[in-house]
Amino acid sequence: MRTQVAIIGSGPSGLLLGQLLHDAGIDTVILERKSRDYVLARIRAGVLEQGTVGLLDKVGAGSRLHAEGLPHDGFDLLFGGQRHRIALDRLTGGRHVTIYGQTEMTRDLMDLRAAQGGKTVFEAGDVALHDFDGASPYVTFRTGGVTQRLDCDFIAGCDGYHGVSRASVSESALTILERVYPFGWLGILADVPPVSHELIYARSGRGFALCSMRSGTRSRYYVQCGQDERVDDWTDARFWDELRRRLDPETAEALVTGPSIEKSIAPLRSFVAEPIRFGRLFLAGDAAHIVPPTGAKGLNLAASDVHYLSEAMIEHFIEGSPAGLDGYSAKALARIWKAERFSWWLTSLMHQFPENGPFAQRMQQAELDYLVSSDHAMAALAENYVGLPY
Amino acid sequence: MRTQVAIIGSGPSGLLLGQLLHDAGIDTVILERKSRDYVLARIRAGVLEQGTVGLLDKVGAGSRLHAEGLPHDGFDLLFGGQRHRIALDRLTGGRHVTIYGQTEMTRDLMDLRAAQGGKTVFEAGDVALHDFDGASPYVTFRTGGVTQRLDCDFIAGCDGYHGVSRASVSESALTILERVYPFGWLGILADVPPVSHELIYARSGRGFALCSMRSGTRSRYYVQCGQDERVDDWTDARFWDELRRRLDPETAEALVTGPSIEKSIAPLRSFVAEPIRFGRLFLAGDAAHIVPPTGAKGLNLAASDVHYLSEAMIEHFIEGSPAGLDGYSAKALARIWKAERFSWWLTSLMHQFPENGPFAQRMQQAELDYLVSSDHAMAALAENYVGLPY
Repeated sequence: MRTQVAIIGSGPSGLLLGQLLHDAGIDTVILERKSRDYVLARIRAGVLEQGTVGLLDKVGAGSRLHAEGLPHDGFDLLFGGQRHRIALDRLTGGRHVTIYGQTEMTRDLMDLRAAQGGKTVFEAGDVALHDFDGASPYVTFRTGGVTQRLDCDFIAGCDGYHGVSRASVSESALTILERVYPFGWLGILADVPPVSHELIYARSGRGFALCSMRSGTRSRYYVQCGQDERVDDWTDARFWDELRRRLDPETAEALVTGPSIEKSIAPLRSFVAEPIRFGRLFLAGDAAHIVPPTGAKGLNLAASDVHYLSEAMIEHFIEGSPAGLDGYSAKALARIWKAERFSWWLTSLMHQFPENGPFAQRMQQAELDYLVSSDHAMAALAENYVGLPY
Repeated sequence: MRTQVAIIGSGPSGLLLGQLLHDAGIDTVILERKSRDYVLARIRAGVLEQGTVGLLDKVGAGSRLHAEGLPHDGFDLLFGGQRHRIALDRLTGGRHVTIYGQTEMTRDLMDLRAAQGGKTVFEAGDVALHDFDGASPYVTFRTGGVTQRLDCDFIAGCDGYHGVSRASVSESALTILERVYPFGWLGILADVPPVSHELIYARSGRGFALCSMRSGTRSRYYVQCGQDERVDDWTDARFWDELRRRLDPETAEALVTGPSIEKSIAPLRSFVAEPIRFGRLFLAGDAAHIVPPTGAKGLNLAASDVHYLSEAMIEHFIEGSPAGLDGYSAKALARIWKAERFSWWLTSLMHQFPENGPFAQRMQQAELDYLVSSDHAMAALAENYVGLPY
């Protein structure tokens, strides 16, 4: 089998890259370790920057998003028992974010790829990357008990943090910069109307909480929890009780609860591998970097990586110039580090850290007090939240 | 002896408070532990916010400042070997700071007080504060071998971090919030022209450096040093060499060196005591709070405390209302915490911390990269640097 670009991973970055290349007449094959149903069952982020929406529109995958997604012109910061609105539209000259589950976005992109006859191999086992340091890379994998070989010009590693792509790179070629936060997020999904029509990021003495949603009838809530806690120890009743205690009385009162349809604990991590190009292998999205979820940058950062990578590949295949590919790593990393900085900052600002003494806690409070008192500081937050320009 | 307000300390806060009260017809006596010459020999900060200059103008102590002080419309951040200008005037709608040594400001205020016949007792020993919890406070002190008693309506504690005023308050009445930074600033004063006509705040792999000045012919330079270093280990040659290594090649090349006329190491500390009013005792300036020197907020924060305190005392003596005095602590602390936050942030951003791993160092770099790329972020820095409104 032969293709121009072998894409490892059928998550949003791999699928979006496939569409952007397809529209430029570049052939791709996607290899996905898991089944289609497994991929579609993953619950992930749901806050899209305008740039991400623009890319989905560009490939013609935006119609359901515009029909069902919820544009948000702002969000609330809750601290000291008070909610303070960050008016994204006013602060950024009219920009906003869109609430639309990553699961839905993945489904739209999969449907589009299928309709266009794009090739995806699901349940591809033993995926192995070969010779990407040379001129003729290829990927081997097992499907239906048979080992296959996929020859290609380039390999795009879009297979996430635990994927084979970054693991195929020699350790000595990688610089890893990383921080693991001393807490996790316990999240539940429930078919109840959201407590507020916009997101609420809450700092309380008991820890961080986030009131979010997937739609007008499906809510997504999170509370900061200990690193070693187990989901089984959290009944729905305990979760709702803890969430209420981290909100102001009025919001807690308005909270509609119900049975959870998903409940899980996620660790929080900042992680960057540098560089993100190795010969003919290019990493994008979680394969190259992880952000803590505060500020919802993970999926959006994958989208901007894919934007840069698709432009670079198009420049190569269509114009015959290597400049884009040569510049990909530095260009993508410049934006990655800004998003890493923002996610780290918002995480540091809103969570309770076991190692923080009274002074550090007062600094969080003072920073929040200053933030909501300053249009300049709020505008800096807002421009990062809606997404820095590509 | 009797006065309306007994002011402890003849530094800039005590002197400025004395003038603001004098101009409202309120009588004060200043008690100063040290001699006049000692006070005038102290080398301290030299960057004045417009609000501070406004207060000096208000009391008629601004003429030499306007003749000899240097208005600065901006400063440079140096990192990654590049200088980036923060254009204070453009970013704040025309505001600036003024370079004028605290020593000079103290002299101007002392001269003014002397000319108006304001009473100051220098070398007042064994100063002790009495009965400020009751209606009739008084201060005792020794001068010329004789113990004296000064009765008053109020006591203003303007005697700095090590002074008797805060130490006179019961520990149980105070909440202390504090951070000691794991490094110091080694500073020298030299009669050489400054390397740049504006300040340069430098972050380098070897640590922080600051290029500052007192005038067009007198420079003040600092390098971050270890907590336990001794001045005697730093020859002038070693200092200049270390400073050069922390600057970009062009700036290092332009540096004019010469013999130091003062050389000292100062620790860096964030410190706030809450509240800052105890019955008829009111703390102002360093007696209540310390900021690390990065961003030059210490003297300016003392000035804003004194502004709030003078207004409150005038409200009491002239209008007969206790509202200002009752609100002083909360009002002053709101601004103090914002300045503490700014000083902590700029210190954290620009210094090398022994406990920082590679990720934290990259976060500093990413924050600086973002900062100079964003007008909103630079404007937030600038509005703090020129001074938040009173």
